[in-house]
Amino acid sequence: MKVSIVGITGYSGFELVKILNNHKKVTIASIHATKDISRRLSDIYPYLSGICDLVIEAFDAKAIMAVSDLVFFATPSGIASQLAAPFVAADFPVIDLSGDHRLPADVYEKWYHKPPVSDAVLSQFTYALTEWTDLKGKRFVSNPGCYATATELALLPLLKADVIEEDAIIVDAKSGLTGAGKALSEASHFVNVHDNYVTYKLNHHQHIPEIVQMLQEVNPKVPYIQFSTSLLPVNRGIMATSYVKLKKPLSKAALDAIYQAAYEDKPFVRVQEDLPELHNVIGSNFTDIGFIYNEVTNVLTVVSVIDNLMKGAAGQAVQNLNAMMGWDETEGLLVSPSYL
Amino acid sequence: MKVSIVGITGYSGFELVKILNNHKKVTIASIHATKDISRRLSDIYPYLSGICDLVIEAFDAKAIMAVSDLVFFATPSGIASQLAAPFVAADFPVIDLSGDHRLPADVYEKWYHKPPVSDAVLSQFTYALTEWTDLKGKRFVSNPGCYATATELALLPLLKADVIEEDAIIVDAKSGLTGAGKALSEASHFVNVHDNYVTYKLNHHQHIPEIVQMLQEVNPKVPYIQFSTSLLPVNRGIMATSYVKLKKPLSKAALDAIYQAAYEDKPFVRVQEDLPELHNVIGSNFTDIGFIYNEVTNVLTVVSVIDNLMKGAAGQAVQNLNAMMGWDETEGLLVSPSYL
Amino acid sequence: MKVSIVGITGYSGFELVKILNNHKKVTIASIHATKDISRRLSDIYPYLSGICDLVIEAFDAKAIMAVSDLVFFATPSGIASQLAAPFVAADFPVIDLSGDHRLPADVYEKWYHKPPVSDAVLSQFTYALTEWTDLKGKRFVSNPGCYATATELALLPLLKADVIEEDAIIVDAKSGLTGAGKALSEASHFVNVHDNYVTYKLNHHQHIPEIVQMLQEVNPKVPYIQFSTSLLPVNRGIMATSYVKLKKPLSKAALDAIYQAAYEDKPFVRVQEDLPELHNVIGSNFTDIGFIYNEVTNVLTVVSVIDNLMKGAAGQAVQNLNAMMGWDETEGLLVSPSYL
Amino acid sequence: MKVSIVGITGYSGFELVKILNNHKKVTIASIHATKDISRRLSDIYPYLSGICDLVIEAFDAKAIMAVSDLVFFATPSGIASQLAAPFVAADFPVIDLSGDHRLPADVYEKWYHKPPVSDAVLSQFTYALTEWTDLKGKRFVSNPGCYATATELALLPLLKADVIEEDAIIVDAKSGLTGAGKALSEASHFVNVHDNYVTYKLNHHQHIPEIVQMLQEVNPKVPYIQFSTSLLPVNRGIMATSYVKLKKPLSKAALDAIYQAAYEDKPFVRVQEDLPELHNVIGSNFTDIGFIYNEVTNVLTVVSVIDNLMKGAAGQAVQNLNAMMGWDETEGLLVSPSYL
Repeated sequence: MKVSIVGITGYSGFELVKILNNHKKVTIASIHATKDISRRLSDIYPYLSGICDLVIEAFDAKAIMAVSDLVFFATPSGIASQLAAPFVAADFPVIDLSGDHRLPADVYEKWYHKPPVSDAVLSQFTYALTEWTDLKGKRFVSNPGCYATATELALLPLLKADVIEEDAIIVDAKSGLTGAGKALSEASHFVNVHDNYVTYKLNHHQHIPEIVQMLQEVNPKVPYIQFSTSLLPVNRGIMATSYVKLKKPLSKAALDAIYQAAYEDKPFVRVQEDLPELHNVIGSNFTDIGFIYNEVTNVLTVVSVIDNLMKGAAGQAVQNLNAMMGWDETEGLLVSPSYL
Repeated sequence: MKVSIVGITGYSGFELVKILNNHKKVTIASIHATKDISRRLSDIYPYLSGICDLVIEAFDAKAIMAVSDLVFFATPSGIASQLAAPFVAADFPVIDLSGDHRLPADVYEKWYHKPPVSDAVLSQFTYALTEWTDLKGKRFVSNPGCYATATELALLPLLKADVIEEDAIIVDAKSGLTGAGKALSEASHFVNVHDNYVTYKLNHHQHIPEIVQMLQEVNPKVPYIQFSTSLLPVNRGIMATSYVKLKKPLSKAALDAIYQAAYEDKPFVRVQEDLPELHNVIGSNFTDIGFIYNEVTNVLTVVSVIDNLMKGAAGQAVQNLNAMMGWDETEGLLVSPSYL
Repeated sequence: MKVSIVGITGYSGFELVKILNNHKKVTIASIHATKDISRRLSDIYPYLSGICDLVIEAFDAKAIMAVSDLVFFATPSGIASQLAAPFVAADFPVIDLSGDHRLPADVYEKWYHKPPVSDAVLSQFTYALTEWTDLKGKRFVSNPGCYATATELALLPLLKADVIEEDAIIVDAKSGLTGAGKALSEASHFVNVHDNYVTYKLNHHQHIPEIVQMLQEVNPKVPYIQFSTSLLPVNRGIMATSYVKLKKPLSKAALDAIYQAAYEDKPFVRVQEDLPELHNVIGSNFTDIGFIYNEVTNVLTVVSVIDNLMKGAAGQAVQNLNAMMGWDETEGLLVSPSYL
Repeated sequence: MKVSIVGITGYSGFELVKILNNHKKVTIASIHATKDISRRLSDIYPYLSGICDLVIEAFDAKAIMAVSDLVFFATPSGIASQLAAPFVAADFPVIDLSGDHRLPADVYEKWYHKPPVSDAVLSQFTYALTEWTDLKGKRFVSNPGCYATATELALLPLLKADVIEEDAIIVDAKSGLTGAGKALSEASHFVNVHDNYVTYKLNHHQHIPEIVQMLQEVNPKVPYIQFSTSLLPVNRGIMATSYVKLKKPLSKAALDAIYQAAYEDKPFVRVQEDLPELHNVIGSNFTDIGFIYNEVTNVLTVVSVIDNLMKGAAGQAVQNLNAMMGWDETEGLLVSPSYL
């Protein structure tokens, strides 16, 4: 199978290149960006020498359809919405890593402040949190956001088991800097990030509506979530710390059973005995989940960790590709966490 | 005034030395530790050359009382409880930075797993969150814990104004590694901390009862708090993120008025327009507080930041000394945040 | 004494504000920048609330001379050269922290690629490495560069004692990111700096000619130096590791005597028993120097460390001010290293 | 092929597990340590769940020879020297990652301060810097040290081409903390490493004799090297900055030709156009090398970077295994650098 990647010079593009380089069934046919056209990717990023020596091309939908069987959009939000339509029209498979095909038009506009895609296009796309979605035969996939992935995987089992109060979900989520992208800004300058911890976009993060929408699919009574996002002085990794109220006290064993029922046959979700650390998953496609219940306060604390560029972006995109194609879900993704 | 410091080679001891070196009214008469006796402090820690060249002495209560007017205990918990009694008996002033004189005996034993001080000794001590305590004439001061300081300063104004639900306080607190002390352990090994984020002692942190006790002083209806503590890969700094429910919606102006009423004449608490970052306060004795209210969820998020070794330990100890003596509260403490 | 600061929103400007805030003999009369005019400095940088609440003004030489007694230029190179002339013409004291008044016109142009100041203006300025310069009565001071300060203080005693081969000096210098300034670039993006180590401007760093010029003042036979500069993933600090060949083997005692002779009465240079670490000096105005001789290779390794924003910029600028005025050299500068 | 790993709970042991998990021709038959016997590795290190769920066993040479075809020693120095002899006696293949089989007895004792192996055992071992060693048919391999690997790969091409002065080699090498191992010490405590840069073991690092020995193999006139080692506040990565004098000036093209001749058919050495950064190679088995010549000083600066746990330890060990077996040199090792 041949694929093209649009948005090759962003962090998710790099990760796609590295993952697909070790994928037995996929070859990268072309890579696309808006700058550095005609330059070899590995000339600009020498660390990719021998890994991806393709030449960057300008975007051209027809040319992509001529050489590939599927296109990944690893572009910032607001781009795939402009470029994906011809592929949909031609029934040419798309996996969009951006937020452009996740939300209804009005919600998208409110949270992204950009023009939405048409309902006709949107209706073709499947929002694909792999473990909770049947992707067999799907051709247009909207890959979840990084914070959304970590949060949804932690909360969905509890909502499915109907054991938590729907209107008392508080999530304190933290991300490394790659989650904020490559754009240059005061907020990403080394001196401002190092030795710091910054809470941003409080109550305004664009992943909030996507999370609520997905939680409501499993339990329509969820009215909202209180969701905060902060920047950790690290490059990779998200921890979502969820505080929820139990409808009635539950034993550790009962809670374990709920999570095991959800994930025991899922290769990339590991339910842990203890609260997982960020290190558990960095560099890998794993989601690790742990929890502790406090009988005094009746609060269950659930900690979930992912690598935002792997399970939170490119890793899940390839996992979704594998699921679409009916391949082994782990193909190309058996990378161990670096841990140290 | 002359002071002695017991526990000179811990992080708080170092900070006391550095602060008092610039304090106009205080001279350090002697420094004490359990090892490196008879060695010059600056020979072991060359960065203190010219700042503190005193020789470390073994602990000796009588000798301290002979040369000093006050003693600081900057020891781990479980030490001051053993050593402070003779000073109390002699009515010789003590400022204890450890947790040994903060809690009733039964509570102390439960959370610290160590023998408590007697009620007779404990009753002599005043728990001194400077901004909320009258210290004039006090002789025995128990300095609050670092997490406790950040959390109490954020929540007390709201409880005093009676605007938040007492049984729905959730605090997600994060600290740099100096908060965990100098002990060597897997948990403090560089490789395990760097690029990581670790939640620890969930529901078991020993500052929880101290916080609840202080909140109850202002509002006895507070039954408990849900409190989590995590380690940030930085050396200094605490951020306490508090999630509370308002009894009824309040405007930004109304909330500002509540905080201004509490802190407008307090030189070391700065109520900020926006959520403060860790950088705001590192190296200084400031506590910066900011907040944002979410009308959809009715959750008020309050962010408070301190330098755990300054306002969270040695800085507040000197601030308390200034208050005890009736000196300018800021004497010796006008150190700017390093920020970068 | 009243001073004005031009370039207030750069890192050196911030440090000047913080140092002068604790200086007994100096008041900041006005602060200047090219943007954020008419805004309060502490509104833009809330961490400075209560430390500097002045309003930023546009640059105006006459206005500065009307309200102040001296002006600091904490601007990027290429600015002071444009703005300082009227002050020189009016014999109004200037301390320039930039590289604009350090080098002859032809050398400046070659290394800075910018128009130089006139010889007439340049001749008024004194290059002031404080410990090696007599500043009494000087009115125009050119403050050394950060790398230059660390390197010159390490090498000058050896050259003065005439014990090293002049044509075999190799310096491997490393700096934290504040040394690269606030400009946004790929090179200062957090993700590119964190967990990285990057050598840059090899053989082209603009501090090279300044160092050679200063070394030649003490020993004209120095023909050149081999000098490399790299970025450490930290905010502050420079370590210069110098490798020199001895003319004949020297004992540790003999080398100690050479350094003590140079610095025994200098409060900000500490000759250490062992090689100093970056931590030794961060946050302070100290320069710590240590060395080890290898009899097998005849190489003497000298390690010198400074805080690039203190002794490497604003701290030395205030030290120079103190020296110009005949005040105590340490006034305003007795800040302890933060170490942790 | 089946292998056993002795010293499984050290950093190199972890890396071997992760690499071999993706190696098509190798299965791990048993893992050994001195503590945590009978516990599942992934119970102690949950990040390895699903990657290595073997139970840790005590060391037993006979048992290893019964279940495996080769044994890796990933132990600290001083252990393999005690344990490897029976394998040698039985002609059972060994790859030793420690320093125990690299040096003649007298040199080993001088630099390691531990009892050396016998000459009889030592003579069986081949020091295997993969790119410079023929391993076909070898059964006992001594894997080079991390600093040694980075330094030798940078200098050997120049010595082979006979273009540098043999008695003027100065190497300033820097390593991340994993290079110092898992032992708890003041030197590895997070607070002491973070925001710091520390030079250690100057003129005493145990890799010095190994480097000199290897350089002398190619050019016996090398009398010594001046070699410094420092700790970078990162987890992984070594940069060796070598300063050498050319016998006569050489063009960039001539130097390129020298390095290309040495490495053009070596998949894990990439000669770069510019100086490589640490990021280039982290997580991978690559060695990247770049250089710049200074005509003024006649110094050629060569920068080489490796991941100390990959090419500097476990990666090279597997590369050596591949070479011993005549397999594709890259089998199991095509891991891309994480870069970010």
